[in-house]
Amino acid sequence: MGRWEPNARGRLATAALELYSERGFEQTTVAEIARRAGLTERTFFRHYADKREVLFAGSRELEELLVQAVAGAPESAAPIDVLAVGLEAVSRMFADRREHARKRQAVIMANAELRERELIKLASMSAALADTLRRRGVGEPAASLTAEAGVAVFKVGFERWIAAAEEREMSQLMRESLDELKAVAAGG
Amino acid sequence: MGRWEPNARGRLATAALELYSERGFEQTTVAEIARRAGLTERTFFRHYADKREVLFAGSRELEELLVQAVAGAPESAAPIDVLAVGLEAVSRMFADRREHARKRQAVIMANAELRERELIKLASMSAALADTLRRRGVGEPAASLTAEAGVAVFKVGFERWIAAAEEREMSQLMRESLDELKAVAAGG
Repeated sequence: MGRWEPNARGRLATAALELYSERGFEQTTVAEIARRAGLTERTFFRHYADKREVLFAGSRELEELLVQAVAGAPESAAPIDVLAVGLEAVSRMFADRREHARKRQAVIMANAELRERELIKLASMSAALADTLRRRGVGEPAASLTAEAGVAVFKVGFERWIAAAEEREMSQLMRESLDELKAVAAGG
Repeated sequence: MGRWEPNARGRLATAALELYSERGFEQTTVAEIARRAGLTERTFFRHYADKREVLFAGSRELEELLVQAVAGAPESAAPIDVLAVGLEAVSRMFADRREHARKRQAVIMANAELRERELIKLASMSAALADTLRRRGVGEPAASLTAEAGVAVFKVGFERWIAAAEEREMSQLMRESLDELKAVAAGG
């Protein structure tokens, strides 16, 4: 088997998610993932540190995308509108990944260790977002509150987007969730 | 040493926090905690499952207090005002514990495993809060968003309350943080 397999990373990710869905995260070994992908364990470890990382490799990309969109929002935009810009950018990244996201979420929810890792991912997103808002000149506690509210909207919007039979676009559900937060905060 | 020591639980908690502060969480053993408290390891394990639980024994009390206050808020109150009632109740529980809370937070922040446990505690609070709001007749996604927003306000208000030299009451800081969230959501 050659050293450079075409799209080895993507094939490993697909094989891993299939196996985690079929038999559970804990019951799946790296050897099985590599075999399903038609690759070697050695190739697996060239791309991922362990079988958990396959599920979280997109987290950094997500965080960077969010931070970049927020950093690049119009200077005059209020924090809550900056948040909307960030959520719109994130929605574009996920556009064609609904089925993948559904499968991934089911795997995560079935395992306590993975649920914890997911919480850490969201906390890291919130911290990065608050930091970016402070660099835009937003003071405290507004920056932290906006960031936490943004992650809350993302979480709720995401859960709605991957719900069974849901067909609306993620960007629409994010906008609706943000509007709902505004309504709640206004005493609605 | 007798089987029933007066206030063994409180003495163990105080000894544990002292030791975690002095030499770090990881470097402290249960044997040392028991010795500092003038008790046996056996007594320690009668009160706590492990040395981590000493730091999180109050989590259930906090969650229950929040849920009870929210459940008991006036029927006509809007979700955001129900949240204010919950935060007020929680503030009363913490009233005399600022120094303890400061020490505990420093221990938590110094250890990745404890930070994760703290995230799980907050996620559990949010889930319990959303559940209580739904039982009050609040629909989705308003219930989940209000709960997430409530935990965000709690987290930010708490961090301000334990900041060095901060002397204002927790209830005041919670009210201010909630007002700030409202201002952010209104586009301020």
